[in-house]
Amino acid sequence: MWKEENNQLTKQFDFPDFQAALVFVNRIGKLTEEVNHHPDIQLGYGSVTVRLTTHDKGGVTDKDRTMAEAIDRL
Amino acid sequence: MWKEENNQLTKQFDFPDFQAALVFVNRIGKLTEEVNHHPDIQLGYGSVTVRLTTHDKGGVTDKDRTMAEAIDRL
Repeated sequence: MWKEENNQLTKQFDFPDFQAALVFVNRIGKLTEEVNHHPDIQLGYGSVTVRLTTHDKGGVTDKDRTMAEAIDRL
Repeated sequence: MWKEENNQLTKQFDFPDFQAALVFVNRIGKLTEEVNHHPDIQLGYGSVTVRLTTHDKGGVTDKDRTMAEAIDRL
């Protein structure tokens, strides 16, 4: 479930190990590169936390919600 | 320069764009996988922040310092 707080959408995804988490980061990277909208991504041993915001609007926009749905489909 | 604070070594690396930052994250991933010592990595549009600590020692050890030097050589 994505949480909206501090003007951003945040969700943590869990993985069995670092490598699996890194693969997911790369899939997000490919997706976000295609639409040129880049999240902040925090990569830990078995987790990836994604934060989405639209910097030039100072908060969460439909662009972020669409991206969140696309990340969920990965 | 790596900073030691809150029981971890931290350094930010800057890049021209998201893609270049992601390439660097993957190079760190490969390196850390080889030695099975995994940092926390924060990936932003043009920056990568690496945090190193040895969880089972509760702080920074030589393992982290060696890893920091190896990351600097990437």
